[in-house]
Amino acid sequence: MEWETRARYDESIFFVLTELEQGLWTNGKHRFALPEEHRVSDILPTATFEFNKAVSTLSHWFDGDRFVLGEQFTMADIILAHTLNWAESFEFVVPEKLLNYKNRMYAREACKRALAKAG
Amino acid sequence: MEWETRARYDESIFFVLTELEQGLWTNGKHRFALPEEHRVSDILPTATFEFNKAVSTLSHWFDGDRFVLGEQFTMADIILAHTLNWAESFEFVVPEKLLNYKNRMYAREACKRALAKAG
Repeated sequence: MEWETRARYDESIFFVLTELEQGLWTNGKHRFALPEEHRVSDILPTATFEFNKAVSTLSHWFDGDRFVLGEQFTMADIILAHTLNWAESFEFVVPEKLLNYKNRMYAREACKRALAKAG
Repeated sequence: MEWETRARYDESIFFVLTELEQGLWTNGKHRFALPEEHRVSDILPTATFEFNKAVSTLSHWFDGDRFVLGEQFTMADIILAHTLNWAESFEFVVPEKLLNYKNRMYAREACKRALAKAG
């Protein structure tokens, strides 16, 4: 991988893990993941606000065609598709072009095999 | 960089960005960074709880000697030292061995030059 591609790869993964996931994980933590005494349900609307902002940013730099890095499938696609799937299952609003991309990634044979193994 | 070192490098950076930073950024967002109508000050004790848990985990796998990857200085050190500095300036409790490491990183000539440029 050339350094420029590597930089875009790191950038994409960092964006997904630190921005796109943040609202989702805040939602999950304060609904069920944190010990009950640390949950603050008033935070949930803010988590939605943050996710909407992040997914809007994402849809400005990625239109869902092919892969995150263009023609090359990478782990960035696995992490992004997983996070979009998470958003859908939490009933957050995800632009259709990104849901289509996510469904295309989940339709990959390797993804089906991995999910079958995960049980 | 060998693949095993590369994996530890990614793991370290992902830990800092997604775990160690999370409580700090939640604190900053809800004190000053978010638009006022989205701030929830009740979240602040939970942010401290999360940071304490993350910094305790960190201190189990990194004792502050040399560098994150051992003998080799990498960007993981810049990101970790920056985040520990952030924790200190927000008056979170940071174990002494990690503060010593952070101070050692900030004492590097290259760090001083970078900070001078940043103004």
